[in-house]
Formats: sequence, structure tokens, C-alpha cells
Amino acid sequence: MLVFDIGEYKERVTKTKGRMNREGIEVLLITNPANMNYLTGYDGWSFYVHQLLILKDDEEEPIWIGRGMDVNGAKLTTWLKEENIKGYSDDHVQSTIKHPMNFVTAILKEKGWANKTIGVEMDQYYFTARCLTELEKDLPNAVFKDATRVVSMVRLIKSEKEIDYMKQAGRIVERAMQAGIDSIDAGVRQCDAAANICHAQISGTPEYGGDYPSIFPIMLTGKGASAAHLTWSDEKFQNNEVTILELAGCYHRYHCPMCRTVYIGNPPDKLKQIAETVVEGVEKVLDVVKPGLICEEVEMQWRKAVTKGGSYKKASYHRLAYAMGLGYPPDWGEHTVNMRPGDKTILEPNMTFHAIPSIWEEDYGFGLSEAIRVTADGCETLAKFPRRLFVK
Amino acid sequence: MLVFDIGEYKERVTKTKGRMNREGIEVLLITNPANMNYLTGYDGWSFYVHQLLILKDDEEEPIWIGRGMDVNGAKLTTWLKEENIKGYSDDHVQSTIKHPMNFVTAILKEKGWANKTIGVEMDQYYFTARCLTELEKDLPNAVFKDATRVVSMVRLIKSEKEIDYMKQAGRIVERAMQAGIDSIDAGVRQCDAAANICHAQISGTPEYGGDYPSIFPIMLTGKGASAAHLTWSDEKFQNNEVTILELAGCYHRYHCPMCRTVYIGNPPDKLKQIAETVVEGVEKVLDVVKPGLICEEVEMQWRKAVTKGGSYKKASYHRLAYAMGLGYPPDWGEHTVNMRPGDKTILEPNMTFHAIPSIWEEDYGFGLSEAIRVTADGCETLAKFPRRLFVK
Repeated sequence: MLVFDIGEYKERVTKTKGRMNREGIEVLLITNPANMNYLTGYDGWSFYVHQLLILKDDEEEPIWIGRGMDVNGAKLTTWLKEENIKGYSDDHVQSTIKHPMNFVTAILKEKGWANKTIGVEMDQYYFTARCLTELEKDLPNAVFKDATRVVSMVRLIKSEKEIDYMKQAGRIVERAMQAGIDSIDAGVRQCDAAANICHAQISGTPEYGGDYPSIFPIMLTGKGASAAHLTWSDEKFQNNEVTILELAGCYHRYHCPMCRTVYIGNPPDKLKQIAETVVEGVEKVLDVVKPGLICEEVEMQWRKAVTKGGSYKKASYHRLAYAMGLGYPPDWGEHTVNMRPGDKTILEPNMTFHAIPSIWEEDYGFGLSEAIRVTADGCETLAKFPRRLFVK
Repeated sequence: MLVFDIGEYKERVTKTKGRMNREGIEVLLITNPANMNYLTGYDGWSFYVHQLLILKDDEEEPIWIGRGMDVNGAKLTTWLKEENIKGYSDDHVQSTIKHPMNFVTAILKEKGWANKTIGVEMDQYYFTARCLTELEKDLPNAVFKDATRVVSMVRLIKSEKEIDYMKQAGRIVERAMQAGIDSIDAGVRQCDAAANICHAQISGTPEYGGDYPSIFPIMLTGKGASAAHLTWSDEKFQNNEVTILELAGCYHRYHCPMCRTVYIGNPPDKLKQIAETVVEGVEKVLDVVKPGLICEEVEMQWRKAVTKGGSYKKASYHRLAYAMGLGYPPDWGEHTVNMRPGDKTILEPNMTFHAIPSIWEEDYGFGLSEAIRVTADGCETLAKFPRRLFVK
């Protein structure tokens, strides 16, 4: 069930060890499900219980630790040898007495790694505060270091095969967005449009199916279009309402997100004007992104383009783009590089971003985004879909 | 957009303060999205960035803190007054410099609560290790206490309206499970069956729509049926394969989960025998559950029923049932009470559980579950669906 050659996984492990080395980390505990998948192939909806990889700087492969009932899933989906797959007993699950980290520290002690410098992903959903305090209690002689970005930064530049998967996800999101736009109309329940979108996301294309995206469709309608992250209700769409859709296709856990906006009726001039500015802004981004440019510079050029008339003060209020790709709920973002003031990362080929320079007004907004890949001399979009306000 | 009377939310706040009081907690930081929703109504796919409620023991309502762009969502979905909804600027988002907890501690200082005993949800997905270390760094004179279960334990006993929502979720899961069973057949792609299930989950019923469940459909097929938490692929279902489906209906974020098993072809005797035992076991559970009984006692009686022949040693290897209801990804479980050895919780009316006493063999398994509600004198299932092995 591996979706990359074992060689590609091993290369990722080698690169990770390089980063560990530079940061003085001897043992890395990897709890981010996307990072676990990236290094070993592990895939399963088991991240709602504690699980992790242990990577030692001088060991060839990581050790997978998870709930006993997920051991078979790890055997089926990873390239790890069986002795490196270890399951804890079920009385560790959501218990007030035993904690899964106690199982982990027992293994670290047994291996003689209890006094090492241990990297932990400090600001990652599934590494809770309790995980840290249990590790500190059980391993008083270890030194803990924040390693939130160690594996995530290795993920920043994609391989050709990763890019292929993201483009395949692009074919899926094109179909899902079309299903959404086709479904939205006055008198249709929001939930029925959302159901059609999810159907398209998962059935995928005739050639290949879709995986579950890390985020369910964001659907902002009517008054809700002034918010950023609401979902659907069972209310009906109404005339003279704007609806913003943000959704992704997902293939082998690689995402291609996309945002578009639909209006039912005759769109007001103000909305048309905002739409035009946002589209111009996105096209500016596509125009300027190329290897060698610094992330914050892209944002500056975009800002210059969209604020030329002095208006759109709100254009400043969130990041222009973020690195994305492989992901698990609740996010497809990689939490590393952003196109925003202060981010000095230099663009390189095969970095991938979601550029979503939407503009919200107090009462409604217009959203339009592109998933982009930095190429050898510029950039390309991972999905192809018209960039405009859709009117029903 | 509130789905309960304000009075019901306020009663929940009062009960939470009662628990804070008993545990000596003066200020409670509530990061679990289900707990945030439970107390204020807040609903949005924004839990992928840091957000929380501050509840002070002598204040009437909580303070909502989240990302600036989600402030409108909080205004639309909660009963809180506007001055109690506070957004942090976007340069706090996934930044290496500013952390959202620094914004939170500034508010705590301003309020004069920097030296208080502060409860934090230590073992909850969205309260990362970094959240704790930032709080400790900014508030050196505060005392931090683990409050993971403070609000979650208030949620244990449902109101009549919550039960209604869960039963409505039950209608949805009945349709979604039927869609799954109808779709599965030799030659059909797994992703197409999953797409039909998701469509049914979200479109809901003709009378009301469905919300996104906290977990995408679990679909264990063929060799994968020996694992516990895999999802679909785009492979086709094959003859003589078993498929286990675990999925939920969701209504206003309240879940009704259900697990059933389908076999394509002539099921082997061994599978039929396991199926019979599992069904007998579930019926035993439905038979014995009633107010006053201790949780672990239910598990003991179930174990006695299924192991009568001395076999099914594996029947012991995971918890029989867990409390569930309101939830956000990645889980619909409440992470409080379990029916397993050691849990001495006494059953009370309107507690709700997912009882999932499945049996896995090395090569495949049979899963069947019921969502149950403890009634005045026994229990009832929240969904009605035949309890048997489905054969195609």
C-alpha cells in the first residue's frame, strides 16, 4: 500500500537526520500525522489517540508506536520492519491512570536513550501539554528541544511524484468546485450542495478516487460570508446572496485547495469591483512568483497591486499564502513558510503554496485562491479553473 | 444561529463553575472545540489555529479568543456580548515569533487574573505543549491545574434537547449506513461507496440536513479488515471479502455512530460464528445497561456472555463502550467515561455511549455497534438498524 518507493521514504529520513544533526537533536519524537506519513507511509484515522515515531540519529529506520489495535494498520501501510512497530495496551487510551507517553518512555529507557537531547513537536495539535509533562516526569535527565518544524521543513520542497499527486488532487478539486457551483441556486438547501461537493471530492475521477481532505468544505453564505470558517446549514440558498466556497481535492493525502465565489442574482457593483481587484491580485502573484524571490517580497508586490487606488485597507489583514501539501485533519497547511511581512524564505522550485488573498468587507466578502507550484523559472497553478465571480 | 436556548448555555456555564469551585480552579481556559461549542454555541472550522474561552469563577459569561478573521464567526454563532469576543492579529498565526497564548496572557494580566489558579485542558488535541510553556513563561505566578475533564464531565448527562439532536443524527446514520450497504458490491470502487455514504451523511433527511461528522467513514476491506482505522482506497470491492463500516450521523455537532459489516459472497462459517457472538454480546449490553449500574460491571457481564465457550480471548482487548455526543474532528468520543475494567462511574439517565464490542481475528474481523442512551429504567438505541452480518 506504499504510494512512494521505499527509497523516497528513506531519503526523507536521511534529510530529517541532517536537520536533527544541525539542531543538535539525537532523538526525534514525531507526532504530526502528516510527518509520520511522510517518513513511513503510515496512514489511518488513528490520530485521535496518541501515536508517534521515534527517530534516532544513528538508526536506519524509525520506530512506530501507537494503539495496539492500530498495529495491523501500521504493518499494512508502512515500510517499517515488524519489530519496529509497537502497540500499547488499550488501558492507556484516554485513561486517568496510564498515559501512552509512559509506554514511549519505557522504550526510550530500554534503548538507552533516556539521557539524550530529544526533539518534540511542541506546537503541533497532537502533541498535547500532557505529553510533554509525562515525558519530563519519566525522563528527568533528557533535554527537550522544540522540533516542531524539523520534518515539516523537509516537506517544503516536493519531489516530482509529490507534485504529480498534487496535480491529481487538482483534477479532483476542479470537479468538486464545479459540482458546488452547479448545485448552488435559490431554493436549494446548503447541505445538499455540500453533499454533492463531498461526493465529488471522494469519488474523484473515473481514473482514480479521492481521499478525505483535511478540511470539510468551507461554505460561507449570506450573512455568514462575512465570517471566514463556517460550514453549511440546512437553510436554502437565497437570491441576492453571495456564497464563498473553499475546498480541496486530496489524493494520497496530498491536497490541492481552491476558493471561488458564487452570487445568485444580479451582483452589486461593489462586489464586482472587489472581485476584479482580488482576481488582479491573484494574477499578480502568479506573475511574480519565481525561484530566488523572498516570500515577503511576493506579498509586497501583491499589496502594491491591490491597493493602488488607496482603498482595500483590509487587504493587509491576513497572510497572502502558506505552504501546503500533505496533510491530515484539521489542516492541509504545513505550518512553515508564509507569504507575509517578515518571512524571508527564498522561493525554490517545487515549493507549493495556497495563495488566498481574499478580501472581506464588514457584511460580505469575495474569495478566490490558487494552489501554486514554484517552477524552474516562475510558477504554475496545480488546478485549472476560471478566475471570476460566478453568477447564477 | 444558536441551537439551544440561551438559558441552557447559561446552565452549562453554572455547572462548569460548580466543578471549578470543587477543584479549586479560579480561571478556566477551555480549548476543546466541543467544550467551547457546549458553553457558547461557537461553531466554525477554526480549531486549526489556537482559540479558547476564558471562564472566570465569578464572571457571568466566558470570553472568546480566536483569530481576528474568526471574530465575525463568533459573533454569528455565540450568545456572548461583543466585548467578550476578542481576536488576535494574523501575525500570531503559525509564527515563530508571536504565539496566540501571549495574546491570551495579556488579557489575563489586564483582568488581574495573572496570579490565579488556572485550569487548562492538559490532554486535549488543541492545547499543545507550546501553549502550556507560553502560559508558564508569561504568568510565572499563576498555578496551573489539569482541567481536561472539567467541562467534558458536565457534558456526560445530556438534556432532552441534546438527546433529540442525537436521535436526529440517528436518522441520518441509518440512511448513511444503508447507502453504504447498498453501494458495496464486487467491482464497485471503494471510493464510490464512500462518496455515497458522505453524501447521505451531509444531505441528511428531507426534513433536516446533516453536519460534518468528526470522523470520515472508516472502511476496512479485505486485508484491511484486520486493521482498525483505515479508510477507503480506489480499489474495487472483491468477492469473498468482508468490509467493516464505522460511521456517524451528525446534527448540530451531535453524533450517532454506528458500525456494521458486509460480506460479498458466501460468508465462511467462522465469520458467521463471530458475527453471532458479537450480536449476542451487543444484545447483552442493551439488556443489562440501566441507571445505578457501574460501568465496569456492564463490561464484565458482556465478557461473560461472549466468552462462554472459552474462546474469543481477543474480546478483552479494547474498551467495550465510551461516552460520546457533541464533537469536532478528530473524534466524537468525549474522553471521559468508558465501559472497561476499573471505570467505577455509576450509570445515570441520559448518559450516551457508543458500544462497539467488535472482535478482530488476525486476518479479518466483524464489527457491529450501537449508540445507546441510558433511560429511566434501562437503555435504548439512538438509531434503529438490523443487527446482523449483511451479505451481498
